[in-house]
Amino acid sequence: MLQDVCVSDLASPIKLNGFPCKANISADFFFPGLRNPGNTNNPAGSVVTAANVDKFPSVNTLGVSIARIDYAPGGQNPPHTHPRATEIIFVLEGTLEVGFITTDNKLFTKIICKGDVFVFPRGLVHFQQNRGHGPAAVVAAFNSQLQGTQAIAMTLFGATPPVSSDILAKAFRIGNGEVDAIKAKFAQK
Amino acid sequence: MLQDVCVSDLASPIKLNGFPCKANISADFFFPGLRNPGNTNNPAGSVVTAANVDKFPSVNTLGVSIARIDYAPGGQNPPHTHPRATEIIFVLEGTLEVGFITTDNKLFTKIICKGDVFVFPRGLVHFQQNRGHGPAAVVAAFNSQLQGTQAIAMTLFGATPPVSSDILAKAFRIGNGEVDAIKAKFAQK
Amino acid sequence: MLQDVCVSDLASPIKLNGFPCKANISADFFFPGLRNPGNTNNPAGSVVTAANVDKFPSVNTLGVSIARIDYAPGGQNPPHTHPRATEIIFVLEGTLEVGFITTDNKLFTKIICKGDVFVFPRGLVHFQQNRGHGPAAVVAAFNSQLQGTQAIAMTLFGATPPVSSDILAKAFRIGNGEVDAIKAKFAQK
Amino acid sequence: MLQDVCVSDLASPIKLNGFPCKANISADFFFPGLRNPGNTNNPAGSVVTAANVDKFPSVNTLGVSIARIDYAPGGQNPPHTHPRATEIIFVLEGTLEVGFITTDNKLFTKIICKGDVFVFPRGLVHFQQNRGHGPAAVVAAFNSQLQGTQAIAMTLFGATPPVSSDILAKAFRIGNGEVDAIKAKFAQK
Amino acid sequence: MLQDVCVSDLASPIKLNGFPCKANISADFFFPGLRNPGNTNNPAGSVVTAANVDKFPSVNTLGVSIARIDYAPGGQNPPHTHPRATEIIFVLEGTLEVGFITTDNKLFTKIICKGDVFVFPRGLVHFQQNRGHGPAAVVAAFNSQLQGTQAIAMTLFGATPPVSSDILAKAFRIGNGEVDAIKAKFAQK
Amino acid sequence: MLQDVCVSDLASPIKLNGFPCKANISADFFFPGLRNPGNTNNPAGSVVTAANVDKFPSVNTLGVSIARIDYAPGGQNPPHTHPRATEIIFVLEGTLEVGFITTDNKLFTKIICKGDVFVFPRGLVHFQQNRGHGPAAVVAAFNSQLQGTQAIAMTLFGATPPVSSDILAKAFRIGNGEVDAIKAKFAQK
Repeated sequence: MLQDVCVSDLASPIKLNGFPCKANISADFFFPGLRNPGNTNNPAGSVVTAANVDKFPSVNTLGVSIARIDYAPGGQNPPHTHPRATEIIFVLEGTLEVGFITTDNKLFTKIICKGDVFVFPRGLVHFQQNRGHGPAAVVAAFNSQLQGTQAIAMTLFGATPPVSSDILAKAFRIGNGEVDAIKAKFAQK
Repeated sequence: MLQDVCVSDLASPIKLNGFPCKANISADFFFPGLRNPGNTNNPAGSVVTAANVDKFPSVNTLGVSIARIDYAPGGQNPPHTHPRATEIIFVLEGTLEVGFITTDNKLFTKIICKGDVFVFPRGLVHFQQNRGHGPAAVVAAFNSQLQGTQAIAMTLFGATPPVSSDILAKAFRIGNGEVDAIKAKFAQK
Repeated sequence: MLQDVCVSDLASPIKLNGFPCKANISADFFFPGLRNPGNTNNPAGSVVTAANVDKFPSVNTLGVSIARIDYAPGGQNPPHTHPRATEIIFVLEGTLEVGFITTDNKLFTKIICKGDVFVFPRGLVHFQQNRGHGPAAVVAAFNSQLQGTQAIAMTLFGATPPVSSDILAKAFRIGNGEVDAIKAKFAQK
Repeated sequence: MLQDVCVSDLASPIKLNGFPCKANISADFFFPGLRNPGNTNNPAGSVVTAANVDKFPSVNTLGVSIARIDYAPGGQNPPHTHPRATEIIFVLEGTLEVGFITTDNKLFTKIICKGDVFVFPRGLVHFQQNRGHGPAAVVAAFNSQLQGTQAIAMTLFGATPPVSSDILAKAFRIGNGEVDAIKAKFAQK
Repeated sequence: MLQDVCVSDLASPIKLNGFPCKANISADFFFPGLRNPGNTNNPAGSVVTAANVDKFPSVNTLGVSIARIDYAPGGQNPPHTHPRATEIIFVLEGTLEVGFITTDNKLFTKIICKGDVFVFPRGLVHFQQNRGHGPAAVVAAFNSQLQGTQAIAMTLFGATPPVSSDILAKAFRIGNGEVDAIKAKFAQK
Repeated sequence: MLQDVCVSDLASPIKLNGFPCKANISADFFFPGLRNPGNTNNPAGSVVTAANVDKFPSVNTLGVSIARIDYAPGGQNPPHTHPRATEIIFVLEGTLEVGFITTDNKLFTKIICKGDVFVFPRGLVHFQQNRGHGPAAVVAAFNSQLQGTQAIAMTLFGATPPVSSDILAKAFRIGNGEVDAIKAKFAQK
């Protein structure tokens, strides 16, 4: 961070690590896009509405971003990683089972409710599952302008081009047929 | 960040940049202390309830912290800086006038409402003022485990030992008597 | 990095981010433990022999570590992430299919041979599969003293305590019975 | 810092975090602009002559800058912060009262003379006041190519557009009239 | 590092710290240029074949690079520094005397063989000398996309324009004639 | 940097990257040791009086340090590197020839006088030579609490244990006898 602000110029033809800065800034630093719950009508039953640098150019070079995550009853934000950020969440409503797993395969998990805070250390696999009877929602903050997300199952079974089935079969210790069945689910997306 | 986690051992006699790690971790990474509004019955009419490393040891080495800020009607979080963090806020309820000032003395300000997001770049003077008729509250996230806060008026007029009155008089272009009157207000604290 | 070297004192009772330094250093900075292939007689058919700070204390504070990875014919280093490091490999022998997946689910893959170099960007899921008829081996370098590894299948299906089966079933879009069958494979470890 | 040097091309139309590099460098890395005292004939009785990246393009990407500060008798460098740098000063001549305030409102202050060194930690409010009978001067170095400066009184009372007077009145616990009187002083600038 | 990858666009006219990113990436992340030994027929009897960002654009922003170094019998990689990287080596073949010197003038040295690992801390003077009867080779990894190299003798005695001979004579405590004789050797290059 | 200040506790038995913090701070942040010129009666005819963390504990974690360098007529600060810092100098008195060499062996050099500023990029070989008839002096600032110094000739010819003479002979393309003669000069120290 080498100057006060650098609102990203998303229209610039120049590609670099982060974004070039807009020449003129005025109605920036504000983002209204998290006011309303997102649409959770999808297989996971949850949706992440992001205010990272791709949507909220003002955070360019500032080292933060934010999102709201909405969960239908039974919905989940499936196991995933953020390669470039720690995440800290605050529960807006509902009851969630949340957890992360360390590199020595220990699970840290907790049932959390409205007003609770939980932190997911940088790069580690983590998840949230709605365990209440109604909808749930959290605000999630990241120490990166673009945290990135790898939803594990989609990453492995829904990549383009696909990961070879025999690699996945050996990794999960299942048959090639089972791999292809899972791939079919994610290919439908 | 050199390992997965390092939950701070706040009882350790060793002082270092950050904190040593607890030997055993279990019921960590969770913080319930932001569930309820804080008490805003004070001269500013606002209160910051922090979940930084001093209160929430799990964020040690993770590069994030979070807080909730409550505002009585007419309350304000007075102009202040965070020497080590950018801040991003999400409005839980109410209507706030928020703003920050750049190093070339430009004010960026906005009236924001429930669900809105605003970002305050690292190190710059900023404030929030409740402009609604009822209470207001925000969640504030920081890209530092201990953002630090310098409330400008308290820093200058309430320091221990006090800043010399003639320095403040010259800086604000007021009389020594006016300086001492302001100091008296902050000394009451 | 605040001094020339800080060889980690692995016996110190003090836990911090990284390690305290040994008071006296002499026969350090050298590690002979990668001379010989590791034992690949395990379900994955591969083994990582690491020279990170846990085994090679000299790299403490230096921002690098190294490993050799050996693969039996058909062996794989299963899909995994390193939360804190980019990895660059050099093939010592054999023929490998390698790949990584970006956060927009694109797979970059390649067949590589003796003397080839491939790079896996920080935090992204990646893998290596021996595609030759004989053993294979690589040298892998990391820009971290302790890169950390999350082998995806073991992380999710072999954690302690276990991740709830219904969470995994929903994530992979399979039945609870299939989840438990996979868990059984990883519990045998 | 990814290459030896990157002398900033201040004429480039491209705006980014820092500056693009000049294609050809020759008579760079040298700055003669601090040879002479600056003009202290202004309300503060002091002047900062900066050799940061805006004036001395060679420091781009190098993480340092330097300035000389001159003080008339009774002059002051008023309370201010640098959002992105620690400052270390060396007294060229004269006698100064210097100080900074921590985030727990403790003042560290000292009278310093020719040849003395004092350090102001990153982001904290600090000041210098000439306490001698003649002119004073210091060399100030920063660990940033563009430290940024927020002179507190000017920032709050001289911003464009102005900060609402009621916000400042509440913050300093003074009347709106007093606020407007101070604003008038800084508006004259 | 603000996105997954940023393969450098070496043809871009824009110069910045690092490189702009290519708009389209496909057959990247792979580098075959280290397969074969380099030509060691030169005065030092060694050659560094680098896979840093200048030759292997994929490592841009990733914080790593790699090289192979080949040594004829008696060949050396002469004393040098890398201003921006720690180096870790793995011996592919042969027997080498390696060492580095700390800032308090202590030499750490070792004879290393095939399969051994040695680490050279960032910025410190170090060297490798082939002490076997046949050729030797190592793989060297760096925690920088462009480590930079200053071979001490060439830097001082072969610079353009030349360093004044009297400066070198005083530094090495030799005569101007001796300096000029050494300069002549490096000027032949 | 995770808190306002961390004045180093140089007496602590704990060794870590940097230093632990003193429990109580009071008369810190001030250093009077650069008031007077150092003694230049030595072979180089110059002396560096440092205010880095080893002598000025207050700069611990603050990312800066400072020094004064005095030069007798004809004296030099011989070619050296700082592995962890860029250096920026301000001339207090005298006339100096200064220069640094890039990793592609280009020398940037300049004659500088009282009040001039010059910058030496991080890690690169650089020097200063008094070219005036009287004494000279500079203030040098670094963006590191402990910049480290490798004076090239002393590093190579005066190390303990000594670097093998045949390695130095081959590196400088001189005879073993010449190497030993230079070593003898530096061993006298």
